Amino acid sequence: MISFDPQTLVYDARGLIPCIAQDETTGEVLMMAWMNTDSVARTLETGRVTYWSRSRSAYWVKGETSGHVQELVDLRIDCDRDCLLAVVRQTGPACHTNRRSCFYTAIRDGDETEIMAPMV
Amino acid sequence: MISFDPQTLVYDARGLIPCIAQDETTGEVLMMAWMNTDSVARTLETGRVTYWSRSRSAYWVKGETSGHVQELVDLRIDCDRDCLLAVVRQTGPACHTNRRSCFYTAIRDGDETEIMAPMV
Repeated sequence: MISFDPQTLVYDARGLIPCIAQDETTGEVLMMAWMNTDSVARTLETGRVTYWSRSRSAYWVKGETSGHVQELVDLRIDCDRDCLLAVVRQTGPACHTNRRSCFYTAIRDGDETEIMAPMV
Repeated sequence: MISFDPQTLVYDARGLIPCIAQDETTGEVLMMAWMNTDSVARTLETGRVTYWSRSRSAYWVKGETSGHVQELVDLRIDCDRDCLLAVVRQTGPACHTNRRSCFYTAIRDGDETEIMAPMV
């Protein structure tokens, strides 16, 4: 039985909370997306990380169409209760550009540099 | 010379962009806080991670008062350009509760569990 209540988290004016996805094994930060109370509840219930898509205004079960699912390993809350960290088992790339992580651009020597190639 | 322009990032309605801080060595996700265009520029110029404090409406040079500074190692941008990842060299705890990371509460077996003690 789950006694944790997602309503106790702190959501922004749109009713959303940011969730950072981190790779269980490598520790790599894969992506950041948004959740509402229901997507937090669904993520905990199903073990499948489920965001809220702001562009589509719809639940977004990560990998549902692409197969690049995020299996929840651990869900963590920060000290202010206004940010989540999902430790996940990621299948394939987390990014829609086919890269393992969405953070593939670094600012080095004042310029943007691509530090990660798409997966093949 | 820095040719990167912080204005090319995507900010929310408040003019802010979330920035995730990750420990360079351990890969640990330390915290998430917000930046505006100027704090992005200051972070790049000074090498000291500088957030925008929403509660104080002021620049927040991490560790300026506590000494728990974040030295910037690498600043990364995600595919949508609306989230930043700062790889940092963290002195002491990143969290104001004196814990290494702000994400010290996990939801396990449906209940909140503290998984990290304050540093001594």
